[in-house]
Amino acid sequence: MATPGKEIKILAFDVFGTVVDWHGRIAREVDALGLGVDGAEFALAWRAGYKPAMQRVMTGELGWTKVDDLHRMILEDILRRFGVTALDDAQKRHLNLVWHRLDPWPDAVQGIARLKRRFTVCTLSNGNIGLLTAIAKHGGLPWDCILSAEVFKAYKPAPATYLGVAEVFDVAPGEVMLVAAHQDDLAAARGCGLKTAYIERPLEYGAARVNDVSPDPANTFHARDLLDLADQLGA
Amino acid sequence: MATPGKEIKILAFDVFGTVVDWHGRIAREVDALGLGVDGAEFALAWRAGYKPAMQRVMTGELGWTKVDDLHRMILEDILRRFGVTALDDAQKRHLNLVWHRLDPWPDAVQGIARLKRRFTVCTLSNGNIGLLTAIAKHGGLPWDCILSAEVFKAYKPAPATYLGVAEVFDVAPGEVMLVAAHQDDLAAARGCGLKTAYIERPLEYGAARVNDVSPDPANTFHARDLLDLADQLGA
Repeated sequence: MATPGKEIKILAFDVFGTVVDWHGRIAREVDALGLGVDGAEFALAWRAGYKPAMQRVMTGELGWTKVDDLHRMILEDILRRFGVTALDDAQKRHLNLVWHRLDPWPDAVQGIARLKRRFTVCTLSNGNIGLLTAIAKHGGLPWDCILSAEVFKAYKPAPATYLGVAEVFDVAPGEVMLVAAHQDDLAAARGCGLKTAYIERPLEYGAARVNDVSPDPANTFHARDLLDLADQLGA
Repeated sequence: MATPGKEIKILAFDVFGTVVDWHGRIAREVDALGLGVDGAEFALAWRAGYKPAMQRVMTGELGWTKVDDLHRMILEDILRRFGVTALDDAQKRHLNLVWHRLDPWPDAVQGIARLKRRFTVCTLSNGNIGLLTAIAKHGGLPWDCILSAEVFKAYKPAPATYLGVAEVFDVAPGEVMLVAAHQDDLAAARGCGLKTAYIERPLEYGAARVNDVSPDPANTFHARDLLDLADQLGA
């Protein structure tokens, strides 16, 4: 029997939603602050501001901006919208760094450790390097290397990010596989010639808004979680 | 008693010579090829071509070039100078990748693992990201993050590299310490406000050319090896 994915050398992982659960931690920390807002709704609003903020950078309206700083800009906006005035600057700074304290999904550490034995495992996230490093240290994620939009000075889904991974490791695009829980990210990677693995994360947006995890046959692999992906790849 | 280095958050490590032994592995692999050249001399010549090659990039004579590609350019030159004509392209490519197979000094893996418990540990090397990742995977070096001249598009000793580490982690320059076996690298880092730790590597250039490892009182720490540094930092 042929080894599945035998031409693949590099696994590049999306992080927010795919490897770590942003919604759960943010909702819990916001609820714990007792601000009179719904933590789950606050988390969704914060995350919803992410793509428009990156868009402002990609159109040139803003210069290159780290996601840590975009998160803070969005936070200021949603605190206003939710009518929260009780936080001082130090408290806002601490809350903004909740993104550094996100926990891995239960399968993530073991799944990445297994995949690391056969592949080079790296991040490919729009998060900045410092943010991704803090998350890895917080959760014990055993990356071989942290790659970020910050390295390529372009946010996904810009081709420079997907093709940048292949260039960094001096391999062909088809020797890289993007691992992500988002079909739009995977489609963009596929458009650059990468292999793609979809990971089911039905609870990414919380239990009140269960995520559609239907398979798209265009993906090279479809896996329940990272342990299932390791099984399918024989790692 | 005050904690030594208590204001330090990030340890940024030079790699070639400080963490891995380039001379030993290259000399052994070249000797094993039976080309009729002295492996130790060949290793020294290859390494000696490194700074002039980077200089050609920094002056703009060459566009941005990965160290993997600089190593190949230097290799072609020294093969000519040593009169070696027996290698075909695949063999030269394999030999060039000896830099990906360098072994850590005996104290390095354990030393970095101990320091990682208290600090964020990253590379700061002129080597490209793919090269540094391969070395880490080969030797089991447990970096939190791989930073490289390739991220900053400038080679050490350009200030953009040392200050870039502080920017990536959103800390002051004085909260970063460069760990290196080379006084010129450390002096440049100090000029940017970083703390510095000198590591003794008397055999970096081989047993035939023992390295001066005299202390410079300008450094924040002077350590025999990375275990000694961990001891001094209480890590």
